[in-house]
Amino acid sequence: MKPLRVALLGCGVVGTEVVRLLHEQATDLTARVGAPLELAGIAVRRLDRERPGIDPELLTTDAMSLVTRDDVDIVIEVIGGIEPARSLIVGAMKTGKAVVSANKALLAEDGETVFGAAREYGVDLYYEASVAGAIPLLRPLRESLVGDHVQRVLGIVNGTTNYILDQMDTNGAGFSDALEEAQSLGYAEADPTADVEGFDAAAKAAILAQLAFHTVVTGADVYREGITEVTAHDVAGAKAMNCVVKLLAICERVPSTDGRNGRGVSVRVYPAMIPRSHPLASVREAYNAVFVEAESAGSLMFYGAGAGGAPTASAVLGDLVAVARNKVGGTRGPVESTYAQLPVLPMGETVTRYHVQLDVADKSGVLAQVAEVFAHQDVSIQTVRQEGRGDEAQLVIVTHKATDAALSATVDALGGLQNVRRVASVMRVEGEQQT
Amino acid sequence: MKPLRVALLGCGVVGTEVVRLLHEQATDLTARVGAPLELAGIAVRRLDRERPGIDPELLTTDAMSLVTRDDVDIVIEVIGGIEPARSLIVGAMKTGKAVVSANKALLAEDGETVFGAAREYGVDLYYEASVAGAIPLLRPLRESLVGDHVQRVLGIVNGTTNYILDQMDTNGAGFSDALEEAQSLGYAEADPTADVEGFDAAAKAAILAQLAFHTVVTGADVYREGITEVTAHDVAGAKAMNCVVKLLAICERVPSTDGRNGRGVSVRVYPAMIPRSHPLASVREAYNAVFVEAESAGSLMFYGAGAGGAPTASAVLGDLVAVARNKVGGTRGPVESTYAQLPVLPMGETVTRYHVQLDVADKSGVLAQVAEVFAHQDVSIQTVRQEGRGDEAQLVIVTHKATDAALSATVDALGGLQNVRRVASVMRVEGEQQT
Repeated sequence: MKPLRVALLGCGVVGTEVVRLLHEQATDLTARVGAPLELAGIAVRRLDRERPGIDPELLTTDAMSLVTRDDVDIVIEVIGGIEPARSLIVGAMKTGKAVVSANKALLAEDGETVFGAAREYGVDLYYEASVAGAIPLLRPLRESLVGDHVQRVLGIVNGTTNYILDQMDTNGAGFSDALEEAQSLGYAEADPTADVEGFDAAAKAAILAQLAFHTVVTGADVYREGITEVTAHDVAGAKAMNCVVKLLAICERVPSTDGRNGRGVSVRVYPAMIPRSHPLASVREAYNAVFVEAESAGSLMFYGAGAGGAPTASAVLGDLVAVARNKVGGTRGPVESTYAQLPVLPMGETVTRYHVQLDVADKSGVLAQVAEVFAHQDVSIQTVRQEGRGDEAQLVIVTHKATDAALSATVDALGGLQNVRRVASVMRVEGEQQT
Repeated sequence: MKPLRVALLGCGVVGTEVVRLLHEQATDLTARVGAPLELAGIAVRRLDRERPGIDPELLTTDAMSLVTRDDVDIVIEVIGGIEPARSLIVGAMKTGKAVVSANKALLAEDGETVFGAAREYGVDLYYEASVAGAIPLLRPLRESLVGDHVQRVLGIVNGTTNYILDQMDTNGAGFSDALEEAQSLGYAEADPTADVEGFDAAAKAAILAQLAFHTVVTGADVYREGITEVTAHDVAGAKAMNCVVKLLAICERVPSTDGRNGRGVSVRVYPAMIPRSHPLASVREAYNAVFVEAESAGSLMFYGAGAGGAPTASAVLGDLVAVARNKVGGTRGPVESTYAQLPVLPMGETVTRYHVQLDVADKSGVLAQVAEVFAHQDVSIQTVRQEGRGDEAQLVIVTHKATDAALSATVDALGGLQNVRRVASVMRVEGEQQT
């Protein structure tokens, strides 16, 4: 059987693992694909770096020539970022290549271009590795649940921030100390912005929402708060509620009174408290997990390593086998479907719950004033706890569900009350089952 | 676009849900498939039963005529059992129909016939619903992890037994009481044999092993012990070890010194202790979860409702969309691959650990005698705990890994020791990460 020729773009941590697996698994891959897979070339930025185990003959710095070569059938893109990745992917597709990509940034920022090119040129674009590493998640959403009606996706999709928050929960550490430890262990990068500010999670949320709701969602559509302002005090407050703080990516269908598609979708990333009894609460260290609620399937959870060279390469290889099989069979996989065209709702319309800690004057009548502010915004209070006396007096309030706009206006108004010395912390509460 | 016509075999709990979803999701399904799906007919055993929401015009008792009709494109089989399901599936395939089945018994007992027919007649056979209900598991194994090297699958795949064991763990109930409660709540059937004796789990284990290791495995190949002999005492013994007893389906690649495919596969179902820190330990009530260890992907877990009409129907619909898309595209999905042809090893060669409780005479020298028996079989002891005095004197021993044959011979020999009054309980210990 004629071999399928594969071009690899990028030879860093993931690329190196891909090369290793292509070599080590060669016999199995041939049996699974129905044809051998052959490495046609590897595009790198610099030729002068040591690359043990890589045949130097395969290396080139001219990526565009490589992806458009006639003897290449499939292109694997693991360089990341917007450019030159986008031009290379489109160039490859234009010349009939199927593409496997791990590039969440590109798919979230300009999915339109690459999905559009795949459609226009009639080629496969698979990207399981772009979200949650080796955890099979996109394929289940795209294929297994395609006959169901997904209501909500709730996930821990960034390992760095989960490691930091887990340390804060376990040791009572503050954010900076936990970040420093994560950096020293290699869980966080020297510039941790993309992780701790939630940009990475937001890109993944956009990709998940698009698949779950058949609607175009970009990274820019995602409401985003990072974890840099989560304090040891917040984490302790969560503990007192029998909750844990996690950075959550949430994609939700917002119900409407008419029609079952809902009014629109809400896609957001922020640190929130979830009950310790929730399956996501026990996701420790740098692991990822995604909880999916669908109308018929009920609650599902997918758990595993969300990053790392080998896990990401495993996802890339799974996609590679799929597109290679399609090539052998002269067919292609399902294309992205965005037929539902649901609007992405602004954060203010999202329905959620708040946990609010107020430093208050230790006087009678304060609770009544505070309650009045909530009532004025039509926000219903679920529980109030009064703590401490004198200068330490605090009210801890958990609301029922309300729009984020109403909750936010409530918090603003609370800050203006004379007897409220300080809004000490505000955090959302998530993780109830939807009904 | 010309509609695709679907014949449904069986209209019980799952079938009724399938009809409901086909109706309710019609618009979405059309968009996802690229053509409308139309119900051509429903084969039932009796026409005189009340079937609210089902058009009586669609019903027929002549299933074979239905599946071979020219105007049928896809057949969904949810009747279960070996016959007439097998003849109907083969008959449908012979006339070019793609088949979606939820029939674990047939696939595990005589997969050869139905997979063979799918291959011979060049049609799709999808069966996600046969294992673990709505949890996307077969597709990830068959497609996502196809570029990886699966080492082990460890799963809770039977909700009934998990419910019973969970009750025993939570309330200290005995097996019979917990079974009775499960029956009264509808979690267990009046005749619970298939569940409590592990037949259901063994069928699923065979299906999982076949996919994970690309090797033919039938239900009869699976070593099986049920949970009927698990006592409250066993569960308490597990608790003392910070473990929990679960009925596990285990599919394992047994390593060899040469070649990476291993010496063969071990496929087994039995109650075993797993550490409470293991992700499977927290699977409560009738939920299912499957833990997969792959060389590159690392540890993955899939969790959700393992049974029930709606979840199973969700899995059926996912498969239906997949085969319908293939029909529209004039193609078919990946066929079963059994190229690896690894031998299924006898239970005696399986490597595992034992937890043994011995009622012993309260004399000096007993431990030395017992230790000698283990040493004689080359079984290394990890921990020994002496409990009670006098008539209550007990030794609790946990071994390191050894072959099941050696462990079993050790237990036999222990029973013959004069100072061992009784082998009070023997249970396997599972759930360490493989290295």
